[in-house]
Parts: sequence; structure tokens; C-alpha cells
Amino acid sequence: MINEPNRINPIPELLDALVGGLREDTGGTVASYIPELAYADPEHFGLAMCTLDGHVYAAGEADVPFTIQSVSKPFVYALALDEFGLDEVMRRVGVEPSGEAFNAIRLEPGTGRPPNPMVNAGAILTTSLLPFDRILDGLARFAGRTLPVDETVYASEYRTGDLNRSLAYLMSSLGALTADPLESTAAYFRQCSVRVTASDLAVMAGVLANAGAHPVTGERIVSRDSASQVLTVMASCGMYDFSGEWLLRVGLPAKSGVSGGLVAALPAQFGIGLYSPRLDQHGNSVRAIGACEELSARFGLHVMNPVVRKASAVYERRDLSGGIAVRRLEGDLGFAGTEPLTRELAGSPPSALVLDLDRVGDPHPAALRMLDRLVQSLAEDSVPVVVVDHRRRGLLRNAETEFGSLGEAQQYLDRS
Amino acid sequence: MINEPNRINPIPELLDALVGGLREDTGGTVASYIPELAYADPEHFGLAMCTLDGHVYAAGEADVPFTIQSVSKPFVYALALDEFGLDEVMRRVGVEPSGEAFNAIRLEPGTGRPPNPMVNAGAILTTSLLPFDRILDGLARFAGRTLPVDETVYASEYRTGDLNRSLAYLMSSLGALTADPLESTAAYFRQCSVRVTASDLAVMAGVLANAGAHPVTGERIVSRDSASQVLTVMASCGMYDFSGEWLLRVGLPAKSGVSGGLVAALPAQFGIGLYSPRLDQHGNSVRAIGACEELSARFGLHVMNPVVRKASAVYERRDLSGGIAVRRLEGDLGFAGTEPLTRELAGSPPSALVLDLDRVGDPHPAALRMLDRLVQSLAEDSVPVVVVDHRRRGLLRNAETEFGSLGEAQQYLDRS
Amino acid sequence: MINEPNRINPIPELLDALVGGLREDTGGTVASYIPELAYADPEHFGLAMCTLDGHVYAAGEADVPFTIQSVSKPFVYALALDEFGLDEVMRRVGVEPSGEAFNAIRLEPGTGRPPNPMVNAGAILTTSLLPFDRILDGLARFAGRTLPVDETVYASEYRTGDLNRSLAYLMSSLGALTADPLESTAAYFRQCSVRVTASDLAVMAGVLANAGAHPVTGERIVSRDSASQVLTVMASCGMYDFSGEWLLRVGLPAKSGVSGGLVAALPAQFGIGLYSPRLDQHGNSVRAIGACEELSARFGLHVMNPVVRKASAVYERRDLSGGIAVRRLEGDLGFAGTEPLTRELAGSPPSALVLDLDRVGDPHPAALRMLDRLVQSLAEDSVPVVVVDHRRRGLLRNAETEFGSLGEAQQYLDRS
Amino acid sequence: MINEPNRINPIPELLDALVGGLREDTGGTVASYIPELAYADPEHFGLAMCTLDGHVYAAGEADVPFTIQSVSKPFVYALALDEFGLDEVMRRVGVEPSGEAFNAIRLEPGTGRPPNPMVNAGAILTTSLLPFDRILDGLARFAGRTLPVDETVYASEYRTGDLNRSLAYLMSSLGALTADPLESTAAYFRQCSVRVTASDLAVMAGVLANAGAHPVTGERIVSRDSASQVLTVMASCGMYDFSGEWLLRVGLPAKSGVSGGLVAALPAQFGIGLYSPRLDQHGNSVRAIGACEELSARFGLHVMNPVVRKASAVYERRDLSGGIAVRRLEGDLGFAGTEPLTRELAGSPPSALVLDLDRVGDPHPAALRMLDRLVQSLAEDSVPVVVVDHRRRGLLRNAETEFGSLGEAQQYLDRS
Repeated sequence: MINEPNRINPIPELLDALVGGLREDTGGTVASYIPELAYADPEHFGLAMCTLDGHVYAAGEADVPFTIQSVSKPFVYALALDEFGLDEVMRRVGVEPSGEAFNAIRLEPGTGRPPNPMVNAGAILTTSLLPFDRILDGLARFAGRTLPVDETVYASEYRTGDLNRSLAYLMSSLGALTADPLESTAAYFRQCSVRVTASDLAVMAGVLANAGAHPVTGERIVSRDSASQVLTVMASCGMYDFSGEWLLRVGLPAKSGVSGGLVAALPAQFGIGLYSPRLDQHGNSVRAIGACEELSARFGLHVMNPVVRKASAVYERRDLSGGIAVRRLEGDLGFAGTEPLTRELAGSPPSALVLDLDRVGDPHPAALRMLDRLVQSLAEDSVPVVVVDHRRRGLLRNAETEFGSLGEAQQYLDRS
Repeated sequence: MINEPNRINPIPELLDALVGGLREDTGGTVASYIPELAYADPEHFGLAMCTLDGHVYAAGEADVPFTIQSVSKPFVYALALDEFGLDEVMRRVGVEPSGEAFNAIRLEPGTGRPPNPMVNAGAILTTSLLPFDRILDGLARFAGRTLPVDETVYASEYRTGDLNRSLAYLMSSLGALTADPLESTAAYFRQCSVRVTASDLAVMAGVLANAGAHPVTGERIVSRDSASQVLTVMASCGMYDFSGEWLLRVGLPAKSGVSGGLVAALPAQFGIGLYSPRLDQHGNSVRAIGACEELSARFGLHVMNPVVRKASAVYERRDLSGGIAVRRLEGDLGFAGTEPLTRELAGSPPSALVLDLDRVGDPHPAALRMLDRLVQSLAEDSVPVVVVDHRRRGLLRNAETEFGSLGEAQQYLDRS
Repeated sequence: MINEPNRINPIPELLDALVGGLREDTGGTVASYIPELAYADPEHFGLAMCTLDGHVYAAGEADVPFTIQSVSKPFVYALALDEFGLDEVMRRVGVEPSGEAFNAIRLEPGTGRPPNPMVNAGAILTTSLLPFDRILDGLARFAGRTLPVDETVYASEYRTGDLNRSLAYLMSSLGALTADPLESTAAYFRQCSVRVTASDLAVMAGVLANAGAHPVTGERIVSRDSASQVLTVMASCGMYDFSGEWLLRVGLPAKSGVSGGLVAALPAQFGIGLYSPRLDQHGNSVRAIGACEELSARFGLHVMNPVVRKASAVYERRDLSGGIAVRRLEGDLGFAGTEPLTRELAGSPPSALVLDLDRVGDPHPAALRMLDRLVQSLAEDSVPVVVVDHRRRGLLRNAETEFGSLGEAQQYLDRS
Repeated sequence: MINEPNRINPIPELLDALVGGLREDTGGTVASYIPELAYADPEHFGLAMCTLDGHVYAAGEADVPFTIQSVSKPFVYALALDEFGLDEVMRRVGVEPSGEAFNAIRLEPGTGRPPNPMVNAGAILTTSLLPFDRILDGLARFAGRTLPVDETVYASEYRTGDLNRSLAYLMSSLGALTADPLESTAAYFRQCSVRVTASDLAVMAGVLANAGAHPVTGERIVSRDSASQVLTVMASCGMYDFSGEWLLRVGLPAKSGVSGGLVAALPAQFGIGLYSPRLDQHGNSVRAIGACEELSARFGLHVMNPVVRKASAVYERRDLSGGIAVRRLEGDLGFAGTEPLTRELAGSPPSALVLDLDRVGDPHPAALRMLDRLVQSLAEDSVPVVVVDHRRRGLLRNAETEFGSLGEAQQYLDRS
């Protein structure tokens, strides 16, 4: 799965150069508030990138294991969303940025609901919603492999976890946390002690970028909605009190951890995993931050700055004799891609229409409904519409008939 | 520019139905803290949607004028970004969500820097950076038409503006505001009193969605970076203390105003303008919120839930005799669309390669650099690469040569 | 009025020594945020102490004038209390410590009521309740002389007063301040620019310590209740975020100002005035603070650590033949001084009782009522009670009769 | 020790009337957040008042036992002050009012130091400084009798104590609490479960009012400084976010508890104990508050509104032939009582002076030093000074000699 050096493909070389350049930045300090974390090698620096067809590019120490820490938060939140749905989970944990450091104590007055699942209070509450087996199994399914717990780090977290215990008891006293505070924090410490690599994180982020399906195996890990909800919360709350500037400058939903790990994802494009233990004063990995900034700047990755691709889903337009219009569509049809077609055909309706949906993948129901409505209107004006789809999926109910190939459709209309 | 009813195109009908359904929601109350606003007709409800090729769909009272109020904030911020650049503007106004109501007083300790340009303090400071003529002219260029100031509303704002004066004097006392507090607030009141319609707002949002270029005229209003920066700040700070849940549930960068207006934009897809004067307890228009929620849900519009379109920019792949590979690309090339091609060709290099860039629009420099690097590598392995581009733009410097048509290219390679 | 050196009275020498010792402390810096204040001579150090019979001890530069600044706050608050009563004033300004610095913006949610009259917001609001003539006249009556306004300092305050204008506009926007914000702050700046000396401040504090009556002239300046209310608010809010520790260590209700002035008062004992321009980081005069600490420690002045004086108001107890009890009382009778007498007489009632009230000054009504009740009970048991009071004030209505001298009373009872 | 009805002494009747009148106020609700507290009889209402010579007046259910709860805080704080001194205790617990409710979480940034010992965090920390045996024994010494722990209430507190555990873990995580969080909170719950009566509380408060000595037995419980320090902290922090208004309106340092108990003390005058379980929304006993307000208003008890007693400690002034001045002093000499004498004698020095100190109790060292200095000055001017003191305590070192009676002194001077 891991990238092998290849003289021709320029991407590995670019990533190696990026990692090499950032290695020179030795700023920041390894976290020591959990004593065990202080043993990390400060020079380690791993980067991995997972495409949505499951290819993983890797550079540096992308396979050195470390404990996942807070990077676990979005994935466990995804598991909870998938189990209980957004409304139920939002009743227990909010989604508003707290504009505060990771250990801030700012619960909703009255209810004790934590502000969001990316701060410790919210993560502890999220963890308390699921049995720990489910959490461990869920993280493994995201990564596509079994993930071990680092018992030494766990013991260290347990010993130094009074702030988290304080948060748990506070939420318990307000009725927000209904599980046992000591057990909930112990489970949370255990979740934070799961060992991963930068490559694992890239794949895990890839699941979120890929709308919940595993980019390598295609297995559905969480629902499309759960994946986009997690990405949204990462975008607004993932980088603590630095979230606004992060989203502005880097534009990638992300989550960092105190061990130096970081995940980022560009929806429908990539998952990214990073590891470098030296942290800045916000508690984010200095080099991981730098790598994201460079990736965003060099490769034009920014969720609010998408490359404006050809809006229309129509890749070929042919007008045959007799006023027969042929329109060939491709991709996962959405609103923006379908709208120009409806406008064009409504503006100058043909005598007959062939819609070739052969290359259409997994169309959004809204786009199909819109297209079907157009077909119905044309039919009411006596414009026959036939569909071409070799898989004969029957995507448009209002079409007159469906053929396996364009030739058959043309013959049929010519005969009419 | 405005949509005319059309029996065939289903979109107008869908928008009319949406507006009709939401008209039944008579919840909320018209703002009255500025007395003049209370005269708005509570039943008015306008919706408009601007595509990136400049078509405006409209429904309801999309052409009823109202004062822009806080909806002016993102556009004036865009003008300031365009004039001074992000770094300079960020020195004066932050970009972190305040997690507070619109009139919250939370300035950066020490400097008095307001948290972001979407709260009043930040907007007043942003306004103070530009002469008022520039602001009025800038808003007009966004809308594509001259926009009048409503002098009666201005007078009303001026009379009741003590809270904003308080903010201005506070920022002045801390050295954050360097212009005269009374003049700065007066300019801000005037900016808020500019009259627009829902259709205007759709076009203005369309500029942001269209990376800064006017969707109707194509004129560049602000830079691509300024546009994406504004969208990002709208995403994290646009809906006050409701921003997190808004981004989660609706997924559209947006900004609302106390007169009942709202803009939203889906990057690279649409601009949306809304108007309905009745407000919820957060100060957002009840029906405008409802319309965005329905648009997002029904049409699948959510910035974190993009339709995964065919990743590759290659729309046709042809392998000719003699090991000649033809790859035809389309769209505005980006990293994600180009990466699969580099991977494929690096994995099994052809004897010769034709890259047809005829349908490629405005490629991202990063994508071009990557492609050019691939061409160079292939050339070093004695694989000749030629480009087809009838505009002969010379996009790839390392290509052997460039032809106006595919036929010419094939002939050339066949001869070699 | 000012103390003249006297070889025999040790107090002047003690105060001179205290001032001399503290002169060596050159820590702190002269305030410069109002430019005009920076011209103060940092070496100046004045101390004055006013006894309740109007004697003023003075040491150092006790007659150097300076602007009163925030030291005006308690006196203007006293004037407002005296004019409108506590309930009305508390409707407009709270009495809770804010636990914050002098320029903190913490108003009551909803109403905008400032927390207390010792922070700027509360002082501006208090000032707005009275015409400025009344304020200037009131301050002069406290001091016992006309006090000039320093127009240069006023102009300087006016120029740099944006923070206070911000507070005023904020309170106006919330409906808390009903006067014009710019006029209210201008009046406040003027009040702060009144010129006083340390000796003036000692006398002014003496009025508060003396239950509202001027210690020199005996003139009533404010009511007893107003005086004690101001002292209470000074005790809990007078030293900003340092109030708790101040009350603990020094135990004197006090108020400091940015020009280096400070007033303190020990109820029923003293008024103190201090001046030294160098301030600590809390904005309090370094030497004035030091002087209060030494005075408190050396002279045992602490409101919570009173010398337990003889509780009983009885200064002479004589039991005559025939079971006639003579009890001679003195001082301003209060509950604690009267209670032992009621207990004693109730425990072993005499055959007859002479109460000598000749030396009783201004008795508390509660004490008189209690004593009168005792007299009634004794009478019901056929114990005759007569009063001696050469002023024949008729203090006890239930007494059988009243005589001008003890001899007459004894004769009368002997005859019975 | 308890008051027996007495027809002649009016005080019991006054207190009975006060209790009777307030019984009609059935407002408020019995605390139920600790389930066991809900079983209290809401009609119970006890009041007790302890004079500094150890007499206890009682009215209503002054002998019904209840758990002391937060009323324990000032007494345990006094024990800690007495053990470690103010500086050491202040290093661990602050003395600033928090202006917040009893369960507020506001610790000093960085150190985690709780704001004051009257909020739960501060009380838990204070408790952690002492072994629990010492606390239980100390409370018993304040009360003058062994106090039992209510094990049922303790168990109930323990079960519902998550908020306090949260505070303890928070302080532990910040290094402020160095003892075990679960053990410290258990000790605190136990301390809160000690059973007392209103009469007990009156005596306990009497110790504080009496400068640390037990008013009944005279035994020293804590030092004079500890007692006054506790009273000061009660004055500024004792009534939570109601402290400012309480001190203003009632003027008695006080502390309330959730079971309905309340202690108040007027320094050098009284201790007061109250019990009535129905609480207002601040968590203070409705009737206990009412009783304090009435006591303050009716009996003129207010720490900032003392009855101005005769300032001079001189109770008799006699000028004999030959310029011999006799001055007889009484009470616990303080600065205010001694100053007029120094002024008088310095103003017109006699030929010889007799100072009768027979009735002087426990003079403040500062007053003695001042007097001795005066004696020295007179001696330097050849004015002989002799002291009369039948206990021959040698209070003034500079006096020429000391006699057991005034007659001896006169004889001596006549002879000279």
C-alpha cells in the first residue's frame, strides 16, 4: 500500500522534498505533561497522503508508531454519530467552537453539555456513549488493521489524568455525563493510548474524505452523513483556539494530538496523516502544521478555494439530423452539474432526446429527481426521451425506454 | 437577468414550491431596535440563486429592496483584504469565532483587536480602513449596479447607535481603532443602510463563489484569494453563536443581517440571496434559515459533503498502435484531477504520449508544474510527449512540441 | 488646623518617622496615561490624619495640591445616597465587588447596571445623577473649603477619555445611563480634576468616620446612614481587585486614585489622607499603601480587630442603704453597652433605682427603647425608677420622674 | 447557659417577638440537592445570641440539631490560620471575593489557587491542610462541647458530591491541592456533616467576636489575629454573590449554609447563631437573613456604623493644687482612646502627673508605647509622672514610680 520510489511519478519526490525541507525546523518541544510522551524521538517526522482510490504516498518516518491521543476524537465521534445519529449525539455534545484551549472548562450553563467533541470534556462524553470494545474495533476499521494499546502510555495518562477526572466529575454533577466518571476517563485514556502511524492516519482521514467508505477496501465504515458531519466539526473546532486562522490559511479540516500526530482531509479528494513530536505553544506539532500549510499552498488544497471544474456533467453534446439531441453525462451527478442541462433543454427543446447515463456513477437523488422532472415536462410536450445505460439501472422513471448502447437508441428514434 | 417562468425547466418550480411552503412559517418577529426597520412588511419573502455562468433564478419578492445591514460585512471585508492583503488586515481584525452574540464585547486583551470581521466591533474596524466612497463603489461592483443609501434608515441607525459607539470608543482607547470613533461608526451606519434586493445578494454571493470574478460580466471584483478568505471567515464566524451548528446542518458559508437579509455561497457552484424580515431569537431570518436548510438538504449542497466527481481530469483515454498513448484532459486542472494520470503513466510508461489540453480551462499552477515534471521524466526515458491545444498556449514547457489538433499530433508521432 | 510640631505630643513625631521611613521606597511609577499627571513630583509624599474632634495631624507634603481623580468616587456616591436614598441609588448602581481592574467592563446582564460606584462605569453613572454644581459644592463641603478645578488636567483627561466614553455609550445603549454619554463623561472628567491636598482628604474621610458630620465644624454633610453605606462600599469595592487582601491586611475602608491620592477611614475613630504619585501595578500609590499598612499594624487600626473596650455603659455603680441602686451611664448608648445593665437589674432587682444619664451623649433609639422597657417592668414590680439628667431631656418616658442632680434624686427616694 | 425567660429583662421578649414575627415568612424551599437535607422540618426556626461575657440569649428552636454544612468554613479556616499563619495559608487559598455562586469554578490562572475559603474549592483546600481529627476537635473547642457527625447526611453528601470531586481534581491537576482529591473531599463532606444547634453557632461566632477567646470559659481558641482575619474574610466573601449588598444592608460578617444555618458576629460585641431550613434562590436561609436584617436595623448593629463612644479613655480628670494633674484611664487602651490625652497634656503640660491605670484592662502595645513616649517627654521637661496600678504591672517604663493607690501617689507628689 505504501508508496515505492518511482523515478517518473513526481509526487513522491515532491513530498520527500517537503519533508526534507521541514526537517530543518527544530522548533517546539516534545510534550512532557504525560511523562511517557517525553521519550518520543524529536527528530521523527512522517507524512502520508491517501487518495480516494486507495493509493498511499508516504515520506519520512510514516511508519513509526505513536499514541493517537486527541487525534482519536473525530473518529470516535464519527462512531457515535453513526450509532445514534446527529440529533441524539448533539443532545449530549454541542458543535460550537469554544475558542479556548484544549483543557478549557466551558460547559453549557444548566445542562453541563460540553461545547464540542474536540475539547477534552466533549471527547470524554463521546467516549462514554460507546462500549470500549466498539471504540477499539471502530478505530481498527478506520485504519484497516488492528491497532494495539500502548499500556505504558496508558498507565502514564492514568496517573496524570486529574484534569480530565475533574471534567468528568463536573459533567456528572450537572447530569451531562451519565456513566461513571472514573470509568469514562479510564476508557478515554485507553483510547488516547492506541498506537498508530502517519500512514494509518492518512487512511483513516481518507475514510472521512471518501464520504465514509474505506478508500482501499471500499468497505463502508460510517455513513456519508456521519463523515461530512465529522469533517464539519473538525473544520470549526479541530484546532482549538487556532481554528479560525487554521481554516483560513490552510483550509483543511484537521485534528491534532499532543503526541505530535495530525490528521487532515480534503473532502472528495484526500486524507493526510502526519507525525512529528515537537509542539508549538498551542500544543500542535510544529512540522505537521508546516506541512499542511505547504501542501495547501503548493498544491492548491483549500476547502473554500476549489478548482472550478467544468460545471456541466455533460461531456459530449451531439445534435443529429431530425432535431434529435444526444447528451452524454458523466460523474456522480449533483445539482450544479445537472442544472445547466435543464436550462439548455428548457431554453430550446429538441424534437427528441437521448440521455446517455453510461458514465454516471452514484447520482445524488436530488439531481435525478430534477432530471426526471425535466424528462416528464418534455414528454408532456411530445418530446420523446430515451436513456442509454448499459447497466439498465432505470435511473429515470419518466423516460420512454432505456437501451444498452447509443446505437440502439438512435435506431429507435430514427424509426419513430 | 431574472428568471422567467418556464414550463420545462423544473428549477423555478422547485424554488417557487420551496418559497411557497416556507411562507406558511410566520414565526419570529421583525427587528425593532432600529425603529425604522419595524416598518418592513413581515410577509415579504424573496429568494434568488446565481449560477457561476451568471444565470439568476428568483422566487417570491426577490426584487423588494431592504437595507443590507450586517450582510455588508463580508463584502466590505473582501474589499479590505483586496486592498491591504490578509496579513495586514489580520493585524487589525482577527479571524477567530467569538462564540458570542453579534454585540458581544470581546476584544483581544492588550491590543483591543476585535475577534473577527463578522461581529460589530470587527466590522466597524474594517469599515474604518477604507474611505466610504470606496465602500459604496465596491458594494455596487459586487452587485453589478449602483446601490442607493436609505437615508431614513441611516438617520434611525445613527440615533440608536450607542452600543456601536461604545465599541468604537473602546477600540480607540486600546489603540485598535485609529480613525475617529464617531466618524467610523457613522460610516458603518451608512454602509448598513445601503439598499439591496435578494437578487442583488445572490449575485454578490455569486462573486465570492466564483473565486472573485463577477458571474454575469466576468469582471474581476476581488482576487481569488480574497474571495476564498472571505468564504472561510463566513464559514467559521458568519452566523454568530450559531455558526458551528449552521455549518454542520447547512454547510454553506453565510452571513445574515438584522433586516432579514442573508447571503450564502457554495464555492465553485452558487451564490444565494434571501430576504424575509421576521427574525428568530439569534437575530437570523426565520424563513431565510429555513430556505437554506431545505436547499442544502434537497439539493445536496454542503461544503463538506461534495458529490465525489470523477477524480481524474482525463475524459478520454486511447491507446494507439505502436504504444502511442492519447490522454485527453478537461476542466480547470487541480492536484486531485492530475494525480491519477501521473500515477498511471509512471506505472506503465507508453512509447509516446499525446496530451490533449484543448478542453482544459484555467489550470492551477501546481497541477501544471506536476504535469510538466512528468513530461520531463518521460523525455529523459526517451518517451516523446506532444501537446494538443488549438489555442497553442504552451502550457507545458517540457513537451517536445504542440499541435492545433489531435490529427496533426498523431501524424507527427506516426512519422517519428 | 494643621498640626504644629510639638516636642511633647509623640504622635507628630511618630507620623514624621513613618513618612521619613517610607520616603526611601522609590518603587512604582507616576501615572502617564493622562499625560498631564506625568508632571507630578514623584518625591512628594504627604500624610494627614483627622481626629473626630477635628484635630488634623500632618506630615510631609500634606499641603501640596493634586487632582483628586478616583478618590472623588466615594464622596460623590455619598452625595447621591444622601439625595436619593440607598434603594433608588442601588436601582442604578450595584454594590457588589467586581473583582476586576478599575477599567473592567462588567455590567449586569440585561440592565447594564454597573457593579459598584468605585469602578469607572459606576462612578460615571453616579455622577450623571447629580448636576455638576452640586458635586463641586458637595466636595467643597466635605473638605470645608472651596476646591478649584485644574483646567489643564481636565483638558488632558478629556482628550484621552475614550475608554470612559465607551463605558458611557455602553450603559446608554443598555438603558442604564439616561443622561447624555458625552456630557456625563465630561462632568466625570471635571470631577476627577478637582484639586485637593492630603490634609483635605483626611478631613473628607473624617466626615465619613464621624458618621456624616464634619469633624471640625460639626456641620452635618451627609446622613449617618449615607456615611456608613459609603464606608461599607469602600470596604468591599474600594481597592479594585485587591480589595479582599486590603481589607484583610489593613482593615481600613479606603479609596485610591491614579494621581497618587488615597483616603481611608476608621469608623468612629479617624480619617486619613495620603498623597504620593508613584503607583504600583494595581494603580495604587506605593507609599500610600505602605503608610496605611504601617498605621494599621503599629497603631492597631483594623475595623475587624477593635480594641474590646469596657462593654457596659455604666461607669459607676453604687448601692445605697435601703436597697437603692444608683447606676451612672456615659457615652452614646448602644445595644452592647446597655445589655449588661438590663441583665444585672433583671437578675437582682433593687428596691429603687437611680439612672444617671448626665454623661450620656446621643443615645441610639434601640438602646433607649430597651432601657425604657426595663424601667416599665421594674415599675410594674413596684420598683420606682428616677432619672438624673441636668439637661432634663426626658429620655426615658417610663421613669417616675427626672432630676437635675444625683443629690436631688437620692433625697426624693430617701423620702419615699 | 441558655437564656431562661425573665419577666424583667426585655431582651428575651424582643428576640421572641422577632422570631415570632419572622415565623410567618414561609417563603423559600428546603434544600434537596443532598437528599438527606430534605427531611428537615421547614417550620423550625432558632435564634441565639452570645454576649462576650458568655451569656446566651435563645429563642425558638435554638436547640434543634442540624448539620453545619458551609457554616463550618470560617471555623476550619480559623484553625488553619492559627496553625500555619496568614502568609502560608494565603499561599494556598486567596482572600478575594469571587462575586459568584458557591459552586463557581474560578481558580487563579496558572496556580489553581481558589479565590477564598468561603467557596467550596477554597474550603476543600483549607480542609486538606489539617488532619480530620484536628478539625473535629477544633470545631468542638469553638462550640465548647463535643459535636457528633451525622453519618446519614455524610453518606448522602458522599453519594452526591461529584461537583466537589470535580473541584478537587481540578485543583490537584493544577498543583494547588497536594493531598488526595477523593480523601480531601471525603473529609470535607464529613466536616459538613457535623451536627450543631443555633446556640452552638452563637457561641462559636462569639469566639470570633471576642478576638479568639471563648466567651464562656475564657479559653483561647485561636489567636486575636486569626479571629479578626476570619471576620474580615467573612465580611468580604461570606455571602457569595450577595456579599456586597449583605455587608451594606446588614453590616455583620456572616456565613450561611445549605442546611439553613447561619453565623454572624459583630466584632467586640456579639456572636449570633441562626437556623431555619427554607432557602432563598441564593441558597441562604430566608428567615435567618430576615433575622439578621432586623437585628441590624432594630439594635443598630453594623460594623461600619458604630455608636461613637466617648473617644477618650480618661474617665476622670482632676487638677489638684500645685499644678498636679490626675488622669484616670479605663478599658483596653487603643490609639483612639489615648490620643486625646497626649494632645491635652502636650498642649498644657502640668507640673506633675498621676496616671491611674487601675481600670485599664489589656492595653494595645501601640497605645502603651505612645503613652510611655509622652511620659518620657514630660520627664525631660522635669514634669514628674507617677502611675497608680494596684496590680503594679509596670505598664509604663518611663514613669518615675508606681503606687498601689491614688492616695499614695498624691502623698508622694505633695512631698516632692
